[in-house]
Amino acid sequence: MSDTAFFNRRDLDFLLYDVVGATDLLGYPRYGEHSRETFDAVIDLAEQLARETFLPHYRLGDSREPELVDGQVRLIPELHAAMAAYIEAGFMAATADSERGGMQLPYLIETAYGLPFACANLSFAAYPALAKGVANLLDAHGSEAQKQRYMQPILEGRYFGTMCLSEPQAGSSLADLRTRARPDGAGGYLIEGAKMWISAGDHDMGENIIHMVLARLPDAPAGVRGISLFAVPRYRITENGGRGGDNDVQVAGLNHKMGYRASANCFLTFGERGECRGELVGTPNQGLAHMFHMMNEERIGVGLGSIALGVASYRYSLGYARERLQGRHPDQKDAESAPIAIIEHADVRRMLLQQKCYVEGALALALFTSRLIDERAGESDPDARQRADALLELLTPIVKAWSSDWCLRANELAMQVLGGYGYTREYPVEQHYRDNRLNAIHEGTNGIQALDLLGRKVIQDRGAALRLLSARIEATAAEADAIEALAEHAASLRRYLVLVGETTAAVGRQFMAGQVRLGLANASQYMTLVGHVAIAWTWLSQAVAAQRRLARGVEGAEADFLRGKLHACRFFFRHELPAVEHCARIVAQSEDSAFTMAADWF
Amino acid sequence: MSDTAFFNRRDLDFLLYDVVGATDLLGYPRYGEHSRETFDAVIDLAEQLARETFLPHYRLGDSREPELVDGQVRLIPELHAAMAAYIEAGFMAATADSERGGMQLPYLIETAYGLPFACANLSFAAYPALAKGVANLLDAHGSEAQKQRYMQPILEGRYFGTMCLSEPQAGSSLADLRTRARPDGAGGYLIEGAKMWISAGDHDMGENIIHMVLARLPDAPAGVRGISLFAVPRYRITENGGRGGDNDVQVAGLNHKMGYRASANCFLTFGERGECRGELVGTPNQGLAHMFHMMNEERIGVGLGSIALGVASYRYSLGYARERLQGRHPDQKDAESAPIAIIEHADVRRMLLQQKCYVEGALALALFTSRLIDERAGESDPDARQRADALLELLTPIVKAWSSDWCLRANELAMQVLGGYGYTREYPVEQHYRDNRLNAIHEGTNGIQALDLLGRKVIQDRGAALRLLSARIEATAAEADAIEALAEHAASLRRYLVLVGETTAAVGRQFMAGQVRLGLANASQYMTLVGHVAIAWTWLSQAVAAQRRLARGVEGAEADFLRGKLHACRFFFRHELPAVEHCARIVAQSEDSAFTMAADWF
Repeated sequence: MSDTAFFNRRDLDFLLYDVVGATDLLGYPRYGEHSRETFDAVIDLAEQLARETFLPHYRLGDSREPELVDGQVRLIPELHAAMAAYIEAGFMAATADSERGGMQLPYLIETAYGLPFACANLSFAAYPALAKGVANLLDAHGSEAQKQRYMQPILEGRYFGTMCLSEPQAGSSLADLRTRARPDGAGGYLIEGAKMWISAGDHDMGENIIHMVLARLPDAPAGVRGISLFAVPRYRITENGGRGGDNDVQVAGLNHKMGYRASANCFLTFGERGECRGELVGTPNQGLAHMFHMMNEERIGVGLGSIALGVASYRYSLGYARERLQGRHPDQKDAESAPIAIIEHADVRRMLLQQKCYVEGALALALFTSRLIDERAGESDPDARQRADALLELLTPIVKAWSSDWCLRANELAMQVLGGYGYTREYPVEQHYRDNRLNAIHEGTNGIQALDLLGRKVIQDRGAALRLLSARIEATAAEADAIEALAEHAASLRRYLVLVGETTAAVGRQFMAGQVRLGLANASQYMTLVGHVAIAWTWLSQAVAAQRRLARGVEGAEADFLRGKLHACRFFFRHELPAVEHCARIVAQSEDSAFTMAADWF
Repeated sequence: MSDTAFFNRRDLDFLLYDVVGATDLLGYPRYGEHSRETFDAVIDLAEQLARETFLPHYRLGDSREPELVDGQVRLIPELHAAMAAYIEAGFMAATADSERGGMQLPYLIETAYGLPFACANLSFAAYPALAKGVANLLDAHGSEAQKQRYMQPILEGRYFGTMCLSEPQAGSSLADLRTRARPDGAGGYLIEGAKMWISAGDHDMGENIIHMVLARLPDAPAGVRGISLFAVPRYRITENGGRGGDNDVQVAGLNHKMGYRASANCFLTFGERGECRGELVGTPNQGLAHMFHMMNEERIGVGLGSIALGVASYRYSLGYARERLQGRHPDQKDAESAPIAIIEHADVRRMLLQQKCYVEGALALALFTSRLIDERAGESDPDARQRADALLELLTPIVKAWSSDWCLRANELAMQVLGGYGYTREYPVEQHYRDNRLNAIHEGTNGIQALDLLGRKVIQDRGAALRLLSARIEATAAEADAIEALAEHAASLRRYLVLVGETTAAVGRQFMAGQVRLGLANASQYMTLVGHVAIAWTWLSQAVAAQRRLARGVEGAEADFLRGKLHACRFFFRHELPAVEHCARIVAQSEDSAFTMAADWF
């Protein structure tokens, strides 16, 4: 199998330009210096670097995990070299302002060029992703001095960063976090506490690591309203910006995981000696809201990571299925006949089509969602910005949870296509599968995403964002109506939109009746329902775009690619989408078997 | 978490005696010396040994994989000691005739006592399972001399064994196997060829390993009709039964797997020096049919193994969910209130109930299927034996494929319940998940099981076995009719039986029209349909049994256990079973999107 299987550039270009309309963003003043050519050049370079520097160490980063040596986490030298190449190419500052040395690219293009890196070596790609998240968080909520002190070195590739939310006793429940910050009398704060599950929490790349830490000020209110945000460097920073002494941040332990191993996941303690200094970022007691700036980006990032692993294993299993000869058709009884490539077996083709649908459908939705970040920043009309924000808020938990649920399914199918070989560590698909299993857990479990979607983004919002999404879906259905082959799917999609509306209304009635717990009890099923409908929408969008290109008379491999899009759309609508009717029934009828099961009855 | 979580004896006893009726078997003359007390004593001992000798090395067998040293596979000493205890207790000969030193237990009881061992350390339990399979195969098809030479030492725990079917170029397609056997002029055969994916293929426990090898005689017909079965020892056996020299069986390599690592999976070559001797077992060119004696048992064994891993991770995550405090109910806004145990969250309870349904439902079906092996051997009426055989043939692919698909889902849910902790190697659930992923692949992939079910066991059989199953299901539904709380489920089950019948008839029509390939194209969906209906049947059976016990006025933990059974039945019927309506539509309508997708369109 050739390494070219790790990524599919043709598909990325199709989604980016034909479906999501990346070049529309060129109309915003911020991106006026750019063109499709500069976008393409960045993605070209990313693809090349990913293949040459990230991909070769994918297995190595798994078998030689980060190690804790003398209180510091050490990565293998191959990864240091890969990161140096990434920084040298300017990717750490891709979206930053040009006056700060950045490329001032749209977030959508950062998402696009990030894909080959994530396909090649996701858990290693976590280091720059988190560092950039910290830079963006400081850009949004830091003072200019903080931007100079912490953000600028990140953009230059000298510093890295982390987000420190969870604690051992409070993984998902941030209301219960205990880390404390008290004024040090010199305008700063002394931080004291323990943080768990810190990805990229320590390592020996770069000069420093800026931990973005949630902690409580003295006399802060209980719960989430008493949390503030602090920038806490791993090493003190001297007056002239150099590296000072240790800042009393200790790596108390490394978590040894099933996968995702190149990313050092740490248990950190702050201020064991009472000498850990941090700076308040933003407004006191608004820390959680500030942190959600980063958290929301990371949630889209988790969705994208899961999609990238799905792409990698799908493409690998596709190549394998085309080359591997095995068996005959069920009605071919002649044992002397030559074996056929396994892609000829109907069940193997089904497993490949499922992968294609999950992975390419989720990628389309993630790219669309990324574009909303640019719209929210770039639109001149405040209403348009507000609409982009509302849609972004609605889609973020779907991109995170639906993608990580279903692209894990894609990894499972990829392994099944490879059979016994896929189960061995000689082939990459088992690592894709192990790595991807984390994505349904971190940055808020998928159960929590489902509660966020149904409880906060839909019900609290009184369905406003959902109506925006419905309008977008209706617009695509209207385009599809005009194309004979797609009219059936357009009609089907409208029926499912009605189903979403009815199901949502039923939950609303539970809330009105004060049945909040029961109304939310089947949130995970609601996520599958809305997620499938959103993915069906992306497939109809892809089919419309493919049909338009085909109508222009393309031939050969390009025509095959477009026919594949049309056929995958058909498969998703017929084979996958109807499964959510049952999910809708469970939610609408408030099916309560789990809700009423007593803990002692298990 | 306490280690007692690895297994659930109360549930096994309930299924064995209240649902599957193990004591009925005491009526067969072969088991006349037994009683419920002897059955229980065997299971008691197994549970104790599993806890004391198999469970402690579960993680160790994963982190310290078997190694190839000087041409022989070496296992860690802890596993040697565990196997010695297993053999010492007489478990290798549990089902064997008493005149051969066996306990003459029913196969059903072997299944039952095997469960704690498999829950504790499945990949290690593969060694005795395969050895017993070889013993049973020789018992069925070997000569008396072969039984003395090969089987008796296995029963005594001195020899182990393997099944050698797959080759590197022929994993699933046995028609294409190339290993040759030519007469050695002394009544034996010289074996030459290579075998891949041989579980327990080499190790340093015991005196010898008897490989059961499929190979072609000179001038054998092509395809599966030209395959014969040979017993090929790892070491030559001397006249007096001692260990002779090397028999030219080489371990060409070890497969390094994602999980299931305590089982040494080998690439073996036979006769590289032209000195590998084997003995023909059974009739020339009937080797595949003979081997299926062992293969069918191993398929049930694979299903049981996947269930055991499901039991282990379900029980572990249940214990965790009861102890772990985190968060509050969605309508509890008071941050000063105490956090609740996560089992109180509706979505966690849903994840536990799904696990319970998959695992305990599949276990009931596997036990019922195991009982059929005893019925087939023990019934005096030839028609009853034939019916047991037909049902056994029908259910074997379901036990293998449905269990391995859905108990893997259970492992995934168990990890989700543990969150980040579950993803670390500090907790056993990640290993359960990795280990279980093999079960959908080996002993015939689940895609092949689905073709076997639909093409061979249902359509070729003209639905006769399916009608036997329907009659059994109808009998349970009739019992449930009489219990008010269950009448709704009985009616539902009958509707799904009709759906199975209609769906099957639609496939039959495709076959009659010569559309064999299209008729089989959605076999995997058919497997899910029939599997879910069969599992629903086991849940209704469990509910009937639970209701009867409850009616006798039990209290406390026992009543809780029985109410849990009733509630899980309700959950399966309302939350899980209706999902197959869509599967049925896909099959009945011959949904052809995957079938008509061209290989070049991906």
